[in-house]
Amino acid sequence: MRAEIITIGDELLIGQVVDTNSAWLGQTLNKFGIKIHRINSISDNDSEIKLQLSECMSRSELIIVTGGLGPTKDDITKKALAEFFGMGWRIDGIVLAQLEGFYKNRGREMLEVNKLQAELPDGCMTLMNEWGTAPGMWFEHDGKIIISMPGVPYEMKNIFEFKALPLINERFSQPKLYHKTIVTINVPESILAKRIEAVEDRLPSYIKLAYLPNWNIVRLRLTGTEQAGIDIVKNVNEISSAIHEILGEAIVALEDLSMAEIAYNLLSARNKTLSVAESCTGGYLSHQITMIPGASKVFVGSVISYSNSVKHHQLGVESTLFETVGAVSEQVVTQMVEGVRQKLTTDYAIAISGVAGPGGGSVEKPVGTVVIGVCDKDTTLVKTYHFIGDRMNVIGRSNNMAFDMLRKLILS
Amino acid sequence: MRAEIITIGDELLIGQVVDTNSAWLGQTLNKFGIKIHRINSISDNDSEIKLQLSECMSRSELIIVTGGLGPTKDDITKKALAEFFGMGWRIDGIVLAQLEGFYKNRGREMLEVNKLQAELPDGCMTLMNEWGTAPGMWFEHDGKIIISMPGVPYEMKNIFEFKALPLINERFSQPKLYHKTIVTINVPESILAKRIEAVEDRLPSYIKLAYLPNWNIVRLRLTGTEQAGIDIVKNVNEISSAIHEILGEAIVALEDLSMAEIAYNLLSARNKTLSVAESCTGGYLSHQITMIPGASKVFVGSVISYSNSVKHHQLGVESTLFETVGAVSEQVVTQMVEGVRQKLTTDYAIAISGVAGPGGGSVEKPVGTVVIGVCDKDTTLVKTYHFIGDRMNVIGRSNNMAFDMLRKLILS
Repeated sequence: MRAEIITIGDELLIGQVVDTNSAWLGQTLNKFGIKIHRINSISDNDSEIKLQLSECMSRSELIIVTGGLGPTKDDITKKALAEFFGMGWRIDGIVLAQLEGFYKNRGREMLEVNKLQAELPDGCMTLMNEWGTAPGMWFEHDGKIIISMPGVPYEMKNIFEFKALPLINERFSQPKLYHKTIVTINVPESILAKRIEAVEDRLPSYIKLAYLPNWNIVRLRLTGTEQAGIDIVKNVNEISSAIHEILGEAIVALEDLSMAEIAYNLLSARNKTLSVAESCTGGYLSHQITMIPGASKVFVGSVISYSNSVKHHQLGVESTLFETVGAVSEQVVTQMVEGVRQKLTTDYAIAISGVAGPGGGSVEKPVGTVVIGVCDKDTTLVKTYHFIGDRMNVIGRSNNMAFDMLRKLILS
Repeated sequence: MRAEIITIGDELLIGQVVDTNSAWLGQTLNKFGIKIHRINSISDNDSEIKLQLSECMSRSELIIVTGGLGPTKDDITKKALAEFFGMGWRIDGIVLAQLEGFYKNRGREMLEVNKLQAELPDGCMTLMNEWGTAPGMWFEHDGKIIISMPGVPYEMKNIFEFKALPLINERFSQPKLYHKTIVTINVPESILAKRIEAVEDRLPSYIKLAYLPNWNIVRLRLTGTEQAGIDIVKNVNEISSAIHEILGEAIVALEDLSMAEIAYNLLSARNKTLSVAESCTGGYLSHQITMIPGASKVFVGSVISYSNSVKHHQLGVESTLFETVGAVSEQVVTQMVEGVRQKLTTDYAIAISGVAGPGGGSVEKPVGTVVIGVCDKDTTLVKTYHFIGDRMNVIGRSNNMAFDMLRKLILS
């Protein structure tokens, strides 16, 4: 069975908005054995939409469309779909009642244009939108399923998960896919590949291996497709074990976790707490750990000491060091990490100071120079790194290396 | 002239990686009047790649391909391209010399598989990769241009900007596009549309208006296409002024800026400093402001007071308040915002405390309840919000509303 996504919106094509919906849809469908074969992003243009629909319907059984359902004139998906399927219009009474409630609850006047959200192509099934005003729509045509949903991510996710997905699962029964991700750190892709060459050469046809490098991390993803008479989970796990045996300490996780999640899990299992002092990463590390629901179990807080004055007054770094060795130095980071652990009274601490760029570099400390420290009550480890790439790269790599240093300290 | 993007990688289709390259390419080309007509994401599959290439070449003049150029076996784009164009292989001596330098500088052994990066289809032009090992490639066929680049974002950007773009601009002379974005806050899309209906109805055919809602913000994007005898910049600016006159205070910027950038610009122009105390947003706000190069001009630092103990010890919030009114309260946020401003000695401060969810909600303070405070030396403003959506939504909306409150305080 083939499935495709069509995302509609000029904002995607001119890069004003990044298409995160497709990634989420791909991830969600994959759990149910449904592979997305193509993602097609097109503009809010009537003939483009119809052309893309007919192309997709010629080669796929499930087509998921997002975007272009807003109340404003630039949104034309609903009209294009109705014309494409040759459908008239109906008012959906349940949607209308829900819309009336929506505006009443918010104390907002319901405009004519809002009422139009209840007008739907006569022949599609309504997928109620609990979190917004544009309902989803389910079309069936020539044995194909076409689902249209708004582009606002949280509205789309809610409709898809609770309204569309149960119906899709009823309709399509797929061979299950089994993914296993192995996270490695600090070993380049080509060296990893060389080391596990023998395993890779022996992979059966129904198991694929992919390499995903990002910010000093390479994720190895094994994907097995269910086969009659074969225990795919067992097979994939055996390959994963073989890789594990070869790569050993290069591996930081045997599931698809971020470095923040890996550190969080280690701390959580040991009932330990963490504080952070960030300079050049400016809060990114704290944001990563607090994106984990329940982060408060281990994360106590941070001091984002962007200025030297905050490093001195809040973390106790000696002022003279800024002149003698500079803020980006192992001496300053040592005092930052020990300072934040003491001030915020935690078991562990992380500190980072560096030059994220594009400005601020010097001959001695070029852009990409980052000093990272971790400590517990007995041990402080500090290391200087030289990262390449743009500002976000330096921040992202610093984040990964900092959590890795913490991981090693916890496990030592 | 039609242009398309092909992004290659199973990781995009199963949602393990979000395609940010396409957005960046769309944005960059747009500045030069080149519109992307479609973005096509496909898997690392030989026949899919060739099929997609022939489809794109049948309808577009410029095709930009990213991904699948790594040294590992799952990456097959280069081979597929050589076969598609019926080309043999050559070793690029300059690439080989660069690779040797690359590995030598890093003290790493150069593997056979690394040397293969210098083997290129015989007939393409090399686009040197300054930041990695997989060079970009420029193909010309039937008057069409096909550019292939690695998927690693910062390598791709560097190749595209400095190697490919100058050649593209030489080749294609396009009518310029002129974009103007107006950023509005706290007015729903449908109400904005109603208010500017008369302006929208009078738009000439060569100017389009789009609405982009996200996290309490709606961006209105005007796009004008250059026409002979018409001053498109003047025309778009006149429409922008007409919209400005109607929407008045709903507008926070007349260019495409984030709320952090808007606040940064106001502070920077006045030589004022900012400190932040974040609880439920966990560092996101600090990260947003420190993503601006040169943020240190206004941003001094933050206290991420995730635990009540940090709120008390670092910001001076009275402990008794946590029991009587709770951490998510106007009293606590008042003390947080005044505390952080004093401790970090800044002109302005922001503080946020709330329930980001999914857990932690109660009947009195359900998930989405967020209290935001801003202050300067004379005035403290605190307000309670009730946001809808998931954890990231609550964090994102809090961020936008906090910077808006600061904006209003600065301008008052």
